Amino acid sequence: MALSIYQLSVPAFIRGMTALDNILTKAEAHAAETGTDLQDLFEARLAPDMLPLSGQIQRASDTSKLAVARLTGVAAPAFEDNEATFADLHARIAKTVDYFKGVEEAAFEGAETRKIELRTQQTSLDFVGADFLTGFALPNFYFHVTAAYAILRNAGVPVGKRDYLGG
Amino acid sequence: MALSIYQLSVPAFIRGMTALDNILTKAEAHAAETGTDLQDLFEARLAPDMLPLSGQIQRASDTSKLAVARLTGVAAPAFEDNEATFADLHARIAKTVDYFKGVEEAAFEGAETRKIELRTQQTSLDFVGADFLTGFALPNFYFHVTAAYAILRNAGVPVGKRDYLGG
Repeated sequence: MALSIYQLSVPAFIRGMTALDNILTKAEAHAAETGTDLQDLFEARLAPDMLPLSGQIQRASDTSKLAVARLTGVAAPAFEDNEATFADLHARIAKTVDYFKGVEEAAFEGAETRKIELRTQQTSLDFVGADFLTGFALPNFYFHVTAAYAILRNAGVPVGKRDYLGG
Repeated sequence: MALSIYQLSVPAFIRGMTALDNILTKAEAHAAETGTDLQDLFEARLAPDMLPLSGQIQRASDTSKLAVARLTGVAAPAFEDNEATFADLHARIAKTVDYFKGVEEAAFEGAETRKIELRTQQTSLDFVGADFLTGFALPNFYFHVTAAYAILRNAGVPVGKRDYLGG
């Protein structure tokens, strides 16, 4: 017995995106309680050349939906990265989760060995599906979920490891 | 074809710990160049009640080695969390990686369905091996690797996503 690419990806992505949704809700509650400007949290970042909270949520959405799209060939919805409020971020998360819920487990047939090419201006990476998921997509996804969490912790929002782990 | 618990854990843990080792080396070089006190980086944290850099490295070591120990029954070395310098952190990483290299793939036989109980003062969690790895151990591991990276980014150390991804 071993694990399928579906088992390794979709449930983890749904759990992570749902955790982000809950963390955003806690941040909104904290902001309301303390009089913090929500927009300051939306734009908060850990370093001048790191993405702000909004960007971390957008990249968590992208890394997970593009991973599933590449592994299955089921096109993912395109998002414009035009979120401007916490409500927009919640909606982005909801649309991402809806996409995952619509992908059938059968679409992952053969995903382990599927050839996946990543081309950007800086890099050209060739993977088979299994290595792409375990060595690239999952670490990238958890990076952005953790970065969003860490930005809010750094800003004083009372969230904890359980909120990150979710489920 | 699917993925074994071994494939999903040991290579990812070795890659992540090696990435941390390289990130620490870049932090040391940055400190030497800029006259930053290494001890300030060692103790740097993102929130008063979050672990400092040293603690994030220790927890990355623990979450990964305890996961492999629980999944295989191959005892992991115990560490005292008494690291006091960057050299100590490098040594902790090296010892953790040595443990992974000594665990045979065959030891993971049946790990998918192995019952794993986590008992702490706050929580009691029951898993089977596959869910423990994908829903707990991997997210936890990447959390601490990312947190270490984010602490150093926040402190001005010039590391990038490629350093985090490693490999």
